[in-house]
Amino acid sequence: MKLGMVGLGRMGANMATRLLQADHQVVAFDRNADRVRDLVSQGAIGAGSLEELVQKLEPPRAIWLMVPAAVVDGTITALAPLLSREDVIIDGGNSHYRDDIRRAGALAPAGIRHVDVGTSGGIWGKERGYCQMIGGDADVVARLDPIFAALAPPFEAAPRTPGRHGPPTAAEHGYLRCGPNGAGHFVKMVHNGIEYGLMAAYAEGLNILRRANAGNEERPVDAETAPLPEPELYRYDLDLRDIAEVWRRGSVIASWLLDLTAAALARNPDLSDFTGRISDSGEGRWTLEAAIDESVPIPILATAISERFASRGEADFADRVMSAMRFEFGGHEEKHP
Amino acid sequence: MKLGMVGLGRMGANMATRLLQADHQVVAFDRNADRVRDLVSQGAIGAGSLEELVQKLEPPRAIWLMVPAAVVDGTITALAPLLSREDVIIDGGNSHYRDDIRRAGALAPAGIRHVDVGTSGGIWGKERGYCQMIGGDADVVARLDPIFAALAPPFEAAPRTPGRHGPPTAAEHGYLRCGPNGAGHFVKMVHNGIEYGLMAAYAEGLNILRRANAGNEERPVDAETAPLPEPELYRYDLDLRDIAEVWRRGSVIASWLLDLTAAALARNPDLSDFTGRISDSGEGRWTLEAAIDESVPIPILATAISERFASRGEADFADRVMSAMRFEFGGHEEKHP
Amino acid sequence: MKLGMVGLGRMGANMATRLLQADHQVVAFDRNADRVRDLVSQGAIGAGSLEELVQKLEPPRAIWLMVPAAVVDGTITALAPLLSREDVIIDGGNSHYRDDIRRAGALAPAGIRHVDVGTSGGIWGKERGYCQMIGGDADVVARLDPIFAALAPPFEAAPRTPGRHGPPTAAEHGYLRCGPNGAGHFVKMVHNGIEYGLMAAYAEGLNILRRANAGNEERPVDAETAPLPEPELYRYDLDLRDIAEVWRRGSVIASWLLDLTAAALARNPDLSDFTGRISDSGEGRWTLEAAIDESVPIPILATAISERFASRGEADFADRVMSAMRFEFGGHEEKHP
Amino acid sequence: MKLGMVGLGRMGANMATRLLQADHQVVAFDRNADRVRDLVSQGAIGAGSLEELVQKLEPPRAIWLMVPAAVVDGTITALAPLLSREDVIIDGGNSHYRDDIRRAGALAPAGIRHVDVGTSGGIWGKERGYCQMIGGDADVVARLDPIFAALAPPFEAAPRTPGRHGPPTAAEHGYLRCGPNGAGHFVKMVHNGIEYGLMAAYAEGLNILRRANAGNEERPVDAETAPLPEPELYRYDLDLRDIAEVWRRGSVIASWLLDLTAAALARNPDLSDFTGRISDSGEGRWTLEAAIDESVPIPILATAISERFASRGEADFADRVMSAMRFEFGGHEEKHP
Repeated sequence: MKLGMVGLGRMGANMATRLLQADHQVVAFDRNADRVRDLVSQGAIGAGSLEELVQKLEPPRAIWLMVPAAVVDGTITALAPLLSREDVIIDGGNSHYRDDIRRAGALAPAGIRHVDVGTSGGIWGKERGYCQMIGGDADVVARLDPIFAALAPPFEAAPRTPGRHGPPTAAEHGYLRCGPNGAGHFVKMVHNGIEYGLMAAYAEGLNILRRANAGNEERPVDAETAPLPEPELYRYDLDLRDIAEVWRRGSVIASWLLDLTAAALARNPDLSDFTGRISDSGEGRWTLEAAIDESVPIPILATAISERFASRGEADFADRVMSAMRFEFGGHEEKHP
Repeated sequence: MKLGMVGLGRMGANMATRLLQADHQVVAFDRNADRVRDLVSQGAIGAGSLEELVQKLEPPRAIWLMVPAAVVDGTITALAPLLSREDVIIDGGNSHYRDDIRRAGALAPAGIRHVDVGTSGGIWGKERGYCQMIGGDADVVARLDPIFAALAPPFEAAPRTPGRHGPPTAAEHGYLRCGPNGAGHFVKMVHNGIEYGLMAAYAEGLNILRRANAGNEERPVDAETAPLPEPELYRYDLDLRDIAEVWRRGSVIASWLLDLTAAALARNPDLSDFTGRISDSGEGRWTLEAAIDESVPIPILATAISERFASRGEADFADRVMSAMRFEFGGHEEKHP
Repeated sequence: MKLGMVGLGRMGANMATRLLQADHQVVAFDRNADRVRDLVSQGAIGAGSLEELVQKLEPPRAIWLMVPAAVVDGTITALAPLLSREDVIIDGGNSHYRDDIRRAGALAPAGIRHVDVGTSGGIWGKERGYCQMIGGDADVVARLDPIFAALAPPFEAAPRTPGRHGPPTAAEHGYLRCGPNGAGHFVKMVHNGIEYGLMAAYAEGLNILRRANAGNEERPVDAETAPLPEPELYRYDLDLRDIAEVWRRGSVIASWLLDLTAAALARNPDLSDFTGRISDSGEGRWTLEAAIDESVPIPILATAISERFASRGEADFADRVMSAMRFEFGGHEEKHP
Repeated sequence: MKLGMVGLGRMGANMATRLLQADHQVVAFDRNADRVRDLVSQGAIGAGSLEELVQKLEPPRAIWLMVPAAVVDGTITALAPLLSREDVIIDGGNSHYRDDIRRAGALAPAGIRHVDVGTSGGIWGKERGYCQMIGGDADVVARLDPIFAALAPPFEAAPRTPGRHGPPTAAEHGYLRCGPNGAGHFVKMVHNGIEYGLMAAYAEGLNILRRANAGNEERPVDAETAPLPEPELYRYDLDLRDIAEVWRRGSVIASWLLDLTAAALARNPDLSDFTGRISDSGEGRWTLEAAIDESVPIPILATAISERFASRGEADFADRVMSAMRFEFGGHEEKHP
């Protein structure tokens, strides 16, 4: 199949490569001509402008946008006038699903179809395949099936789920039409919310293991310090590198995130190459907002996101408020080590 | 009534003063002779040793310990052989209630009675009176009633609760026999757990108010930063000093902690005299442990205590774990301002 | 001063009464004529329609809306054409502050002024006075000062904050212009977020006290039940009624919410007249959304709101997911008492 | 190698089977003779009593206990007098690590060695192998290596971690000596704490997806109900079965727990065969207690455990407290659907 790819950053370029390797034709465009050249050397058809990209595709066209969320509206505005009825714009980036709904509505009068694809897999997707959560009309999603199938991981990437029989479905191949416009990014958004919670759970647990030697430290004896009643219970020097590794086989908490954690610890057991300032790119926040709208309890996910904010110093004033209260009622001075 | 007071730190000395002002007799002892002298100048009877203190009291004696939790066992060991049947040891400090139960059991064969008193009121108690939560046998607690009444705040300190009639009870006077040995410190422990939660709730809210000007800042536009979709909604420069003040009258969240917060903000509106490193002295931890034993959900209290640990840098490794994971799956570098 | 009051439900009627008692003139309107009659009997001027209400006020008019959030837009739409430049619409209800900003902007071209007032005090405000958080232009807020002052609690409602001197400010009188349009409802919104957290902290603590008798129960001995290692530590039958009462005087956690809790427990010590299904009216959710936009950590407030959702059964499916996982990995059947 | 196995419940019997399949000799004992018979039919040597079991083993003996935590002390008391110096007792159950430390100390004078093994893998271990976290002296753990290796999953069960080279270590084979006595159960305990957090994260996320149709419901318009401002954003009927499946391949949140969730959903998409009453067997609680002792923040894990308690009705009183407060300050009646 023939696909236009707009945006050849790390994600877009990797996807284009994976498509080329599966013998699809890719017409590639990026504002950075070097990136286009690089893909052409892999077999892509280069385009120097959106106009050229559109010309090199035959209707009904399929154009995959892999551009920063902030640039999507501008790109669609530039692209739409060049397109014909039944052409498809696929937004494979990190758009908010509400924007998908809005954009699909705006393109509909011109007969231009909109498909949203939330992808997961990070920098590993080129090799392992991308998990794709798709939103849009069923007919147009079906038309794009060869593209999704080429980008997706193989069925063999995981053992079959008991209770599933017959020919493998798309879901068992790592891609799924989740519903109408926006459904793909909605599911991807929640996926990231879960991801934050999973990460925080591992992080808390590893922190407990790391401090299993707390009994070897002298704790000051004063009214400002909670005593450690049985220090002899905390005299373990645990090797987190090996513990993360041992959990990878046979344990209930084995996961891909654990695989990655084991790799990070193998490289640097105390992770001193990081300071612990954790970014967030938005999906976790949107997940909370959706849960609030739906009246769904999310103490875990909200706490995980709060932890990220706090890692960036955003709890400091709240902490000062509490210190100030303690000083006011008890004359407690802050204690510094 | 006549009472021995052992331990004349800030809390013990203030209590002795309040008792003297109520025309009780106080035999005062502290290892620091200056402190004894100071109380004698206020009308107390000084004692240079535990022996002397015991001699200057008549059986059945009442001896109030106001010493650090770590010293209570030693003090009781020294004191017990000097006492007679029906003498009472009152532990007014921050002992774990399980230690009360143990100590009461150990003193029982000698006929020595044990009473535990959790007190709240901080440095303000001398003037406002101390809220006292008491554990021990009913007869001995009744015997000490004049002491508790003198230390307690007046009935007038709060308007009467609708539905309460007749002569004011002890509870309406700020002191209460909560139950048998340990019950006083148990209730005080939970009191402190609640206190942590209340403090954290105010702190989070004030932090939100403080950042109500978030829309005035440029947020970087990149894949590592969640955009602020409507900056025009966050352009308020709020005066926290006045807001804490306005809530003190008529609002649902008026409280003594809010009074103290207003005082702290009045002195220094951005609380720059604090760094936000919050100590904890143990009761909050014990509250969690009790809740765990009882299978009672405590997401709020556990989070409040976790926040204190985090304020002391104890979340740093967990945060590095999450940063490392993000780097592994997405190649995300940490972003520093 | 003369004020139009639109909406004579419990809150609006009480406010009008308080204003009449302070010798203000109130022109009162409600779609329910009985309510108007009732206020007229207290000295108000009745109005049978918005038109009549406007006619009975002299420019520059001040009209206070005390109507459900869902009806505010409709009321303003009906009212605006009847008004003159410099007339003021005051929204004293529970509007989202973003709607204040929008409405103020829409009214500005006609010279109509908009003021938002978040009020706290509930059904007690009529007697105790209302805490008022105000947003709007300084000049128009100043013009309305007599109204705010009459609705507010007296300065004497709380002891003066140390560090405050000179003539009492409005904030010390229970009302405050927090900032421009929307600032009043913004501060009120966060006030409610804090309120949720405070309530949850007391609730968790009281629940721990209530189960202090957990050691008196037999806990089944099986692999699905965590054992209680020291049941002798949990044999207290605590009287929550008296404990809530004793905390009201002298303790660090004294508050108005505690006063109310003591009253509820005095009426019914096990609160069996409630089922524990807790509503939420929106401000708590909006507080979370603001915190998310501002990147402010809010684990406590988010958990408090989640608890409310869960109290309405909204965690049930999540719980079933966890039960299902346990069955899958361990063959664990659910255990029912 | 020859091993005594005491306790032939599901876990013990499965382990014995796996050992027999690896050509180890197993002397099997259980108070239930049928279970012994069953294992004998698989090739084990049967024992009718602990005495007989000990006699059928040659010193230095290795005896694996797979009995309920509550029975371990009794079993060791019965067993110890029958053993010789250098015999090893292996506790493969769910003991608290503090009990391991205590028991190892009590057995030491007689020269009997103690090894603790936390195992993970549930009912799947027989087939997939058991992840084993081991505590004890290095020499005796080394002596037992063939047993651990036979119980463990194969190295091939997971792709090798980048950065690891050379012959596979034991950790890469699913078993690890974590440290001295107790270290195995300590690591297993934290493993379960993490497990609770992971489960809760998936459960919250799936709950959000399930309610993605919230916009299709009428929400009552009253002061007790937060409105849903944009219902058109919540009109998705998502198929959780397929979504759990699609995440299994290529996504960042792929895990074994997700595999199991997909299986449960495949069997019954709305999990109506569960009520959501979630048991906990203790390790999660102990993890919290360890974190508290170590001063490590654990908001996620504490919230996950609290959710389990709440699923069993243990939040009900706290919820009633909050309902009562709302009634007191606002006259809010509880709202029932």
